[in-house]
Amino acid sequence: MKKIDVAIVMGSDSDLNIMSAAANFFEKLGIAYEITIASAHRTPELLREFIKTAIACEVKVIIAGAGGAAHLPGVIASMVDVPVIGVPIKTSALSGLDSLYSIVQMPSGVPVATVSINGALNAGILAAQILSLSNSEFSVKLKLYKDNMKNEVIQKADKLRETGFANYIFS
Amino acid sequence: MKKIDVAIVMGSDSDLNIMSAAANFFEKLGIAYEITIASAHRTPELLREFIKTAIACEVKVIIAGAGGAAHLPGVIASMVDVPVIGVPIKTSALSGLDSLYSIVQMPSGVPVATVSINGALNAGILAAQILSLSNSEFSVKLKLYKDNMKNEVIQKADKLRETGFANYIFS
Amino acid sequence: MKKIDVAIVMGSDSDLNIMSAAANFFEKLGIAYEITIASAHRTPELLREFIKTAIACEVKVIIAGAGGAAHLPGVIASMVDVPVIGVPIKTSALSGLDSLYSIVQMPSGVPVATVSINGALNAGILAAQILSLSNSEFSVKLKLYKDNMKNEVIQKADKLRETGFANYIFS
Amino acid sequence: MKKIDVAIVMGSDSDLNIMSAAANFFEKLGIAYEITIASAHRTPELLREFIKTAIACEVKVIIAGAGGAAHLPGVIASMVDVPVIGVPIKTSALSGLDSLYSIVQMPSGVPVATVSINGALNAGILAAQILSLSNSEFSVKLKLYKDNMKNEVIQKADKLRETGFANYIFS
Amino acid sequence: MKKIDVAIVMGSDSDLNIMSAAANFFEKLGIAYEITIASAHRTPELLREFIKTAIACEVKVIIAGAGGAAHLPGVIASMVDVPVIGVPIKTSALSGLDSLYSIVQMPSGVPVATVSINGALNAGILAAQILSLSNSEFSVKLKLYKDNMKNEVIQKADKLRETGFANYIFS
Amino acid sequence: MKKIDVAIVMGSDSDLNIMSAAANFFEKLGIAYEITIASAHRTPELLREFIKTAIACEVKVIIAGAGGAAHLPGVIASMVDVPVIGVPIKTSALSGLDSLYSIVQMPSGVPVATVSINGALNAGILAAQILSLSNSEFSVKLKLYKDNMKNEVIQKADKLRETGFANYIFS
Amino acid sequence: MKKIDVAIVMGSDSDLNIMSAAANFFEKLGIAYEITIASAHRTPELLREFIKTAIACEVKVIIAGAGGAAHLPGVIASMVDVPVIGVPIKTSALSGLDSLYSIVQMPSGVPVATVSINGALNAGILAAQILSLSNSEFSVKLKLYKDNMKNEVIQKADKLRETGFANYIFS
Amino acid sequence: MKKIDVAIVMGSDSDLNIMSAAANFFEKLGIAYEITIASAHRTPELLREFIKTAIACEVKVIIAGAGGAAHLPGVIASMVDVPVIGVPIKTSALSGLDSLYSIVQMPSGVPVATVSINGALNAGILAAQILSLSNSEFSVKLKLYKDNMKNEVIQKADKLRETGFANYIFS
Repeated sequence: MKKIDVAIVMGSDSDLNIMSAAANFFEKLGIAYEITIASAHRTPELLREFIKTAIACEVKVIIAGAGGAAHLPGVIASMVDVPVIGVPIKTSALSGLDSLYSIVQMPSGVPVATVSINGALNAGILAAQILSLSNSEFSVKLKLYKDNMKNEVIQKADKLRETGFANYIFS
Repeated sequence: MKKIDVAIVMGSDSDLNIMSAAANFFEKLGIAYEITIASAHRTPELLREFIKTAIACEVKVIIAGAGGAAHLPGVIASMVDVPVIGVPIKTSALSGLDSLYSIVQMPSGVPVATVSINGALNAGILAAQILSLSNSEFSVKLKLYKDNMKNEVIQKADKLRETGFANYIFS
Repeated sequence: MKKIDVAIVMGSDSDLNIMSAAANFFEKLGIAYEITIASAHRTPELLREFIKTAIACEVKVIIAGAGGAAHLPGVIASMVDVPVIGVPIKTSALSGLDSLYSIVQMPSGVPVATVSINGALNAGILAAQILSLSNSEFSVKLKLYKDNMKNEVIQKADKLRETGFANYIFS
Repeated sequence: MKKIDVAIVMGSDSDLNIMSAAANFFEKLGIAYEITIASAHRTPELLREFIKTAIACEVKVIIAGAGGAAHLPGVIASMVDVPVIGVPIKTSALSGLDSLYSIVQMPSGVPVATVSINGALNAGILAAQILSLSNSEFSVKLKLYKDNMKNEVIQKADKLRETGFANYIFS
Repeated sequence: MKKIDVAIVMGSDSDLNIMSAAANFFEKLGIAYEITIASAHRTPELLREFIKTAIACEVKVIIAGAGGAAHLPGVIASMVDVPVIGVPIKTSALSGLDSLYSIVQMPSGVPVATVSINGALNAGILAAQILSLSNSEFSVKLKLYKDNMKNEVIQKADKLRETGFANYIFS
Repeated sequence: MKKIDVAIVMGSDSDLNIMSAAANFFEKLGIAYEITIASAHRTPELLREFIKTAIACEVKVIIAGAGGAAHLPGVIASMVDVPVIGVPIKTSALSGLDSLYSIVQMPSGVPVATVSINGALNAGILAAQILSLSNSEFSVKLKLYKDNMKNEVIQKADKLRETGFANYIFS
Repeated sequence: MKKIDVAIVMGSDSDLNIMSAAANFFEKLGIAYEITIASAHRTPELLREFIKTAIACEVKVIIAGAGGAAHLPGVIASMVDVPVIGVPIKTSALSGLDSLYSIVQMPSGVPVATVSINGALNAGILAAQILSLSNSEFSVKLKLYKDNMKNEVIQKADKLRETGFANYIFS
Repeated sequence: MKKIDVAIVMGSDSDLNIMSAAANFFEKLGIAYEITIASAHRTPELLREFIKTAIACEVKVIIAGAGGAAHLPGVIASMVDVPVIGVPIKTSALSGLDSLYSIVQMPSGVPVATVSINGALNAGILAAQILSLSNSEFSVKLKLYKDNMKNEVIQKADKLRETGFANYIFS
């Protein structure tokens, strides 16, 4: 049984276009992960099976994305001892405010580390920060990633100064 | 094993002063019920046990009250085939809006019949309406209850007309 | 006069594309239903007539969908003894938050079983759950429906594992 | 049958301490009014009777106050041809936002003239403005009332200038 | 100087596509009106001039539509003795919630009769209800209008019953 | 006629306990100010008079505090060329969200510099920052004020480190 | 080192299409400004450098635009003595309500002069009002700008009166 | 220089009664921590010093609590590579919704692991979960803590069953 560092779970395949940002980030950093679909409400047994397997694979962080009455992150948090990161998915009617409240307002004893609405990339970065505490390789890569991010802003600032705001072209 | 019509579950004993309104209503109408505390997050096994027992007792309706990231009603709904009624409990910071969104915005396939914030009495009445469909005794009692309710309003209207609004004393 | 199990009422024909999800569901399960348009505000007499007829047809559950100051479910609940399920319709300015509050926050004594914004399918499933309590045929069909739903999620999870998230194609 | 200018209706006697502000205002201006309790949900027949009588008494404006899923003003507006003024009552959980949305967001064709949360006095003034269009006596009294109101502010401004803000005592 | 019954004011010509619903309604009912653009903030003198002229023309009701920090209805209400109806215009960022709060939450003494977000037609109907109190011609026309509205719903209900919900075509 | 640097206006004397924070701050810094009560809605002429006088006194900044449909800052901004600072006052029902929206969401062309709900002290500091641009004396005093503020935090941090969090006593 | 009157900072180049409204306004009025991109979170050192340079250039007002957890204006306000104007940028999920709260609700001692969501033009006008207090040239130009704005409204009002609302064409 | 596992920072000593829950939890689990007051806005240098020292002490997780425009967690996250946990503090006017949005809605690249409003205990538990990934002693203690928590619920459920809901006394 192959070890994994992070498991990514989402409640519906309609969340995949958002949640794939975390998977893409792990690909870049060489972090071992699994990604799956498992609904807390429609397939509770499937979810339990997946989580059991993830624990057997010594998963260290679990990222769960869900929308509406978004119970997935909290339900997973009730099953495991490792940190769970919740991604509130933007919804059609309430814009993800329902998802945010359902994820962040967890009761005492069972925290979910909540990131911004649709913030799957930040969920990935947060997971990498946690893993970096005991893995210096990830730590180095994460710093490179942040340096790149910083340089992009600096380049944009340079470009804006050189071209002027009226000629600035979004690339 | 004694049959029960309704099971009342709440996530914390701090919800008892609200949820007891449903239990009191069932006492009045002679509806068989069980009431317990079981957290979806802190005691998921206890919850599963209680729900299994309730099903074995042929429970017909389950009422669940919870606050904050209120997953209890939805988690129960994922376990059973009978109707689940959710009571959003008022919370300190977000006044129960978090509870409401976490309960009412359930995904397709797993409904929770949501009542008003702190609306445990209405949860009881709704359960009684459902039970009345196949139990004429409850149906009769429910009509009496509604007649009483109506008469109370009429008496208040009479009192207001007689005493005038300035002398009206709240009883 | 033909018996019906469920009546579906909506306040405007602009709600039909949402509310038809409940009707479609009843077609699948073979549940006898009527569907109509009747505004609580513009045609109160028409509404009263329709509800009277529904009661004469021994209706067991009424589903009402409405948007904005969505009084339809509550007004029907004040007329009948059977359970009323309310569907808050998404609105242009307030995204259905107005509809939700107008439906779920009913006063003590007159509950409306509220489902999610635009949740007409869940209203249908909830109605079927209620009917299943005294009709084993619906109960069997409802279980099949839920199994199908579960299998769809499992198939998606299988597909995601096989194709990888980058190649996953929405079908 | 005595003629009345305004009818004041509230859904519950718990709204009386708010709604009495309108009645007090009518006493001051000598406007003929009736005030009653009638719930749109718990006593729909009582409400219909009251409204019929009010119409028979040639009522010109109806003021309705209600909280939560506040259907009373809208339901009355569906019954009458005269202007209906709605007063959203502040509620425990949602602070009257539920009441406001339930009253102000009426569908096309059936307006309710909505005032502020707990704004019963302003409902009274608005009614008086409407009545003043065809009654010069009310018009004169309303101007006096507004002059008094203005003078109170001016006196407070004078007092503030004279005593200084640190010594200003609220009277 | 020609008499007018209603003045319609809007803060910006971008509100015209909404506010024209009131003007169209007055055309149908033969109600004399003026419609103009005058900003409470950008052209306070123009606004004051227009209101003075309207008063000179014996205007009976003023309808004001505005969006965002929507002061126009309240500012007009501070200038006149006749009823002012406020139409909160839907806005880009806050969907008209800012407009609604800015219009409906007027302080004691200066009411604005607020209708729904973008509810210009209802503002027109409310104005007609007020005018009908002293003009039986408008009263008759308003009843016809409401009858038409009712018949439209009835025709839609008939069509839905005849064609079935799946074949119902929006016309 | 004595020159003033800042004018403080509030819509009601009930706002004085909040708005006095700005006046107190000006006393400390030796900034010349006037403070008054003038309602945009109840006393528009009084307001216009006060603003005219303030302009004659060469006022440089105007601070206006108001609650609910809080038009005062915006109405003043439409009258003057100097910067206007708006203080949204916390309200009973909507906690000042109505005040905030009514003040901050001003239309293009007529800005109001909005501070936090009940943030009268910050309004005073912002005014002092503006005045400091052309008055080095205020600039020096403002720096001292900020240093004091910083030192208070440092002292609290020291105290916390010394006494421990369990023994920390609020002074 | 060239003096500048205003510095415009934004957290991301995606805010440029909004923030350029302020820059355009300064071009029109001949106000010296710098505009740059610097993230409070991704490039704190770059931000500090830019602010230091701006102070060295004797900047008088800083305008900062940011979205989401919009810390940029507040972080800049903690670094400088001059007035900081914050522009909440509209966001995808929460429509800029997150930006607004993050900017306007600053703690005592560190104000940010907040304008409306996406209100970059008003930020520019507010900056010009502040600069006008000690620069009569800007003062004159600002009055011209406001006169133009007023005339535009008057022309629209004229056009509406002449063409009628049905023929009014947006230009 | 003594090593610490967690640093707890709060923006004001008024947050101490909330944030002490995390410190108490670390005392119980024997987790080395520092707790301090440092405002992102009023004492940015003090904050930078504290964070530098914490990094020198090899801090692994930082918990930051703040209210209103709550920039503290995000500003710290921009300074460090370790995970930052944010605790939104409940506020007087907006009940902590401002704090929540200011903390959770961080831009891409700089996550803050957000817990519930006033959820300092959950912040402590989340920190312990992170530390437990590389410290089996904490892991064991955390499991004990969770078992205790579970047993408390079970005992309450037992007590409720034995005494009945009417006699249940809160202890």
